[in-house]
Amino acid sequence: MIVSALLTSVGINSGLCILFFTLYSTLRRQPPNFHVYAPRLLAEKRIKESGYFHLERLLPSPGWIRRAWELSEDDLLSISGLDAVVFMRIIIFSLRVFAFAGIIGVFVLLPVNCSGNQLAEFNIANISSDSLDIFTISNVNDGSKRLWIHFCAVYLVTAFVCYLLYYEYNYVSSKRIAYFFSSKPQPHQFTLLISGIPVPPGGSVSETVDSFFTEYHPSTYLSHVVVRSTNKLRRLINDANKLYRRLMHLQAEPTWAKTKRDGFLGLSGRKIDLVDHYEKKLEDIEENLRTEREASLAGDEMRAAFVFFKSRYGAAVASHVQQSENPTYWITEQAPEPHDVYWPFFHSSFFRRWISEVVVVVVCILLTVLFLIPVVIVQGLTNLNQLETLFPFLKSILSLTIVSEIVTGYLPSLILQLFLKLVPPVMVFLSSIQGHVSHSRIQKSACIKFLWFTIWNIFFANVLSGSILNQLALFLDLKNIPSKLAVAVPAQASFFIAYVVTSGWTSTSSELFRIIPFIGSLLQKCCCCCNVKNTTDEFEVPPIPYHVDVPRLIFFGLLGITYFFLAPLILPFLLIYFCLAYIIFRNQFLNVYEPKFESAGRFWPIVHNSMIFSLVLMHVLAIGIFTLKELALASTLIVPLPILTLLFNEYCQKRFLPNFIGYAAESLIKKDREDINNPSMTEFFGELVTTYRPPALSPQQFSNRDSHNAPLLTHSDA
Amino acid sequence: MIVSALLTSVGINSGLCILFFTLYSTLRRQPPNFHVYAPRLLAEKRIKESGYFHLERLLPSPGWIRRAWELSEDDLLSISGLDAVVFMRIIIFSLRVFAFAGIIGVFVLLPVNCSGNQLAEFNIANISSDSLDIFTISNVNDGSKRLWIHFCAVYLVTAFVCYLLYYEYNYVSSKRIAYFFSSKPQPHQFTLLISGIPVPPGGSVSETVDSFFTEYHPSTYLSHVVVRSTNKLRRLINDANKLYRRLMHLQAEPTWAKTKRDGFLGLSGRKIDLVDHYEKKLEDIEENLRTEREASLAGDEMRAAFVFFKSRYGAAVASHVQQSENPTYWITEQAPEPHDVYWPFFHSSFFRRWISEVVVVVVCILLTVLFLIPVVIVQGLTNLNQLETLFPFLKSILSLTIVSEIVTGYLPSLILQLFLKLVPPVMVFLSSIQGHVSHSRIQKSACIKFLWFTIWNIFFANVLSGSILNQLALFLDLKNIPSKLAVAVPAQASFFIAYVVTSGWTSTSSELFRIIPFIGSLLQKCCCCCNVKNTTDEFEVPPIPYHVDVPRLIFFGLLGITYFFLAPLILPFLLIYFCLAYIIFRNQFLNVYEPKFESAGRFWPIVHNSMIFSLVLMHVLAIGIFTLKELALASTLIVPLPILTLLFNEYCQKRFLPNFIGYAAESLIKKDREDINNPSMTEFFGELVTTYRPPALSPQQFSNRDSHNAPLLTHSDA
Repeated sequence: MIVSALLTSVGINSGLCILFFTLYSTLRRQPPNFHVYAPRLLAEKRIKESGYFHLERLLPSPGWIRRAWELSEDDLLSISGLDAVVFMRIIIFSLRVFAFAGIIGVFVLLPVNCSGNQLAEFNIANISSDSLDIFTISNVNDGSKRLWIHFCAVYLVTAFVCYLLYYEYNYVSSKRIAYFFSSKPQPHQFTLLISGIPVPPGGSVSETVDSFFTEYHPSTYLSHVVVRSTNKLRRLINDANKLYRRLMHLQAEPTWAKTKRDGFLGLSGRKIDLVDHYEKKLEDIEENLRTEREASLAGDEMRAAFVFFKSRYGAAVASHVQQSENPTYWITEQAPEPHDVYWPFFHSSFFRRWISEVVVVVVCILLTVLFLIPVVIVQGLTNLNQLETLFPFLKSILSLTIVSEIVTGYLPSLILQLFLKLVPPVMVFLSSIQGHVSHSRIQKSACIKFLWFTIWNIFFANVLSGSILNQLALFLDLKNIPSKLAVAVPAQASFFIAYVVTSGWTSTSSELFRIIPFIGSLLQKCCCCCNVKNTTDEFEVPPIPYHVDVPRLIFFGLLGITYFFLAPLILPFLLIYFCLAYIIFRNQFLNVYEPKFESAGRFWPIVHNSMIFSLVLMHVLAIGIFTLKELALASTLIVPLPILTLLFNEYCQKRFLPNFIGYAAESLIKKDREDINNPSMTEFFGELVTTYRPPALSPQQFSNRDSHNAPLLTHSDA
Repeated sequence: MIVSALLTSVGINSGLCILFFTLYSTLRRQPPNFHVYAPRLLAEKRIKESGYFHLERLLPSPGWIRRAWELSEDDLLSISGLDAVVFMRIIIFSLRVFAFAGIIGVFVLLPVNCSGNQLAEFNIANISSDSLDIFTISNVNDGSKRLWIHFCAVYLVTAFVCYLLYYEYNYVSSKRIAYFFSSKPQPHQFTLLISGIPVPPGGSVSETVDSFFTEYHPSTYLSHVVVRSTNKLRRLINDANKLYRRLMHLQAEPTWAKTKRDGFLGLSGRKIDLVDHYEKKLEDIEENLRTEREASLAGDEMRAAFVFFKSRYGAAVASHVQQSENPTYWITEQAPEPHDVYWPFFHSSFFRRWISEVVVVVVCILLTVLFLIPVVIVQGLTNLNQLETLFPFLKSILSLTIVSEIVTGYLPSLILQLFLKLVPPVMVFLSSIQGHVSHSRIQKSACIKFLWFTIWNIFFANVLSGSILNQLALFLDLKNIPSKLAVAVPAQASFFIAYVVTSGWTSTSSELFRIIPFIGSLLQKCCCCCNVKNTTDEFEVPPIPYHVDVPRLIFFGLLGITYFFLAPLILPFLLIYFCLAYIIFRNQFLNVYEPKFESAGRFWPIVHNSMIFSLVLMHVLAIGIFTLKELALASTLIVPLPILTLLFNEYCQKRFLPNFIGYAAESLIKKDREDINNPSMTEFFGELVTTYRPPALSPQQFSNRDSHNAPLLTHSDA
């Protein structure tokens, strides 16, 4: 890539960012857009969707930037929970790392790279005078003493990143403990989820659980709730929901559409009132639901139960000590928050859960490694000749230069982007059939899957050209990894600089502008003006998709760390990206996203591990590069660095990881003692049993002749 | 190797075995040899070393074989503990596996191999008509359909081994639980070892421990003992022991040797009575010891303590739940048995223990991988020319053909054997500085180290010729491992058949004959007839060196599994080896070895894992061989097998491994309840505190003017 191309890309994307910022600054102040740009404030009734038109509202105002900037960490904690705080720590951590690396990169490494003349000397064919490659390490002369500067930079930045990683791990870990101490008594702290209950022949699950825990945990056991199969119920509720929506639509339509003939194709026979018809159907389903619900409450026990304890420590003890002589029975795990439970999982036995986990892991690996094959095939379909053969009527359009340029230039990348958009939902789906018991764990698992997917399909697939088998073969030949990467990675420097600018900048500012929800709301307004009331009823505040955003942030961190000494030019662009992300995500936490559950920063270890991976990858690259540049001594002297980094990681895991898995006896007992004198605890324990109840089992009402248009308060499964 | 050479080797080694058996059958009945062949019975006073001479005692008697054969598992359990039972299960498991594999190998695969004519057809230079290679898979024609028989055999034997592995894991696991239930209350069940105690400035360790456990475990905490530094004490005791022994020797010597002049070189000056002199010295040291012991009891606290609980479950709970918010403080682990504690370890903090562990792992890997380099260098010194240059006076002897043959033929292998003998003690030493708290864990850790050492230095170093770097390079090039191994491994088949015969058979029968202790006792009898009394005083029953014998058994298992379809001829020899081992080790458990501690079969997972490793190695070989033999389909169809085996292993670990780490709440509570009505428990708890006392702190007496020749009952540190 040449400098002018990069500048063009920067220009276009800066323009886009400014456009998005301006549009956002204007549109967010219009009441009809409140449910796109401030659903959170709307739900909390801090703003109203209706309001008078003010001219000044058309002027863009940057006030939101100030508010986002001034938001303190404690405020963020109180409005969006610890997960949001930890999410922001990823950005702060990256900003610090790349500010430090940026200073070294831009003021030390960049001049050194430019001063070399390796590329000019060897007069490599495709290198024009203003190629971006002269800013990379490739331009430093082979065997030059100046490479020792790069060597020092690698050591320095590694040390700095490790120091920051330790600091952040420590910080997040202490935040987690502080959060635990400041939390009110929460049901999941006192609850364990037990699976693999061995029911003796003729016994019931409930009796077995009761006798086991009164036998072995008499002093701490409180009570339990057996999980019951609600699959049939859920299906009925889904039917009822569909019918209910149809009825609502029907009510909004003119009267002639409400009747229909019951004969052949609705043309003959007697007229029937559709509203009446549907309502009767709905009542039937409701009757079914009621009987089914009663049946569910009585029978259909799964071999799993929520067991409640009198103290947090009691629950922790039961979850840490192996309960049964057969470790596949009485499997305990800390229960998720009540509204976080993923109910459909409870079918599976230990063995089936384990098998499905194995299968999902295999499918994920295959999906990650082979993803590009179908994409490339579909992209191949978009070449002009094939399109013309498939759709002959397009021939005249495709012969226009501009159209053909767009088709050949943008369509393939558009297809890739579309496929990529499909990946996170697929990963969530795979995680959900893996046997996780809560939405938060599904999300964490999907986050890890998507992270490795991104690293493979964006980093490695771009760096390593050739077929998938060739790419995999590289990793089977451990010895040659450094040298092969050292050739391949710097060659893609300009691609990744452009990637930061296009994908990074634009995706962040479109996150602010919320393109898809905005377009969705526009379409809704145009098409079904009559249904506005209905949509506000069903209006929901979205949660932040951590499984999409965390991997993205980490991936840009990986790019920065691996490229900082190869092509320091990437660093300023990354810094801008993280600055944008800093402001924009704070703003979104304030106005848009509402936490659905709280994992108390449990995903930080993922961030830590991926940073360690990035560092080691960078070291491997450095070993390869210094060998390639004929500086064997430097190459050898880098070798201790990955080993030290991995040892550092090992130490961090021993020092901090246990705090991300559970809480210490010390904390649990202290917290329990605080509650002893709390008069509200008896009430809390009384309510505990009812908290873990599948939503399908709580009574809902759909058919209500008297208040069709009023918001149905009992309707909770929409 | 040709058939006749193998037959010669078998002949020589069978002869040796018969010789050892006959010698043993004769010598074991002679009272002076009782402390070599039946130290256990001697120590238990079931036989007496003195006795009348009977002519019939010179006749070899095979009665011991019957007794060893008839020994039931319950008897073995009662006399040698669960470890011995589990050790015998390794042999029984191997016997079953190789009986099954042997039938398939000898009656199916061997005829198939012989019926091929690949080797004859291609008329390979060095193949004579009676080469052992015609019994191997190499002789089957390339692409022959008969290779599918080998393919089926691989699947069949894998399935059988997996079934047996599951069965044995289950059996050993249930034995462990049964052993726990049948055991009397033991101090280590109620005790935790706490390290990393954070002592506040100005506080003492004892107070800190007391306040922590009364605060957080008020209902189960009983008391504690702080570990005190006894290094200085141990040094003093060592000095005292040396002096004591010198005194004993002196007493046995004639009177003229008991005096010495105190002047120049003992020639001038006044005569002094050496006995008196040493006794005074000993008394001084004893005085020192007394004051030092008192000082130790008062001060010099280490940051570690044994904490006693009122119930097993209480101890287990405290050990499973993370105690402190900082996971590097209050580290808990189940205490070892009191006499199993390895006292010198207590110096190290969490960080130092971790670092020393890392260092030991690195040293072990280096030792394992680079071991052969110095050995080969030393072996190189034994070639004739160099010997003649170094020791010119040997020239005349070395010119004899027989001497030169022995020097060139046997000396290198002798040197290798000597170096190999040094390895287990080195591994024990490395494990002991790794930070393990008990002798049993040191032994287990040394066992794992020695196992991998054996696999690398006997299997891989023989299979892969070339330099160490070339060997390592193979493992860095994952893709080519199967094909390279497929070429190298079958080529060494005859070497390993000979290895089973020479090393396996002979080592086992020399284990029976106890060559080294026997020679030692002979030498002792010749040199210091006067000291017989002394040696019987210091006579000690040896424990079985599991860290040497378990890896050896496992290694022969690995040879059998990897070679069974390549060269089935190895199987009959292996079967004979395991039969010998079965009888001999049962006999040794009866007569020779006494357990020093009981790990309750904790080393079984090592056996399980290495068998899985052997299976996967066999599959990799099969993939390589079938590719080499141009049967690509079979090669592909083997691929699922290692994956299934690893999944099976994963399941086994989930199903059984927890039972080898701790006991389930169910078992612990049941056992605790049994003890509630046991009147002896109060006494037991009363004695608990005194059980974990460093041996250096218990009073010992060395100088005792009145009873020099009487066994010193208080002398316990010899």
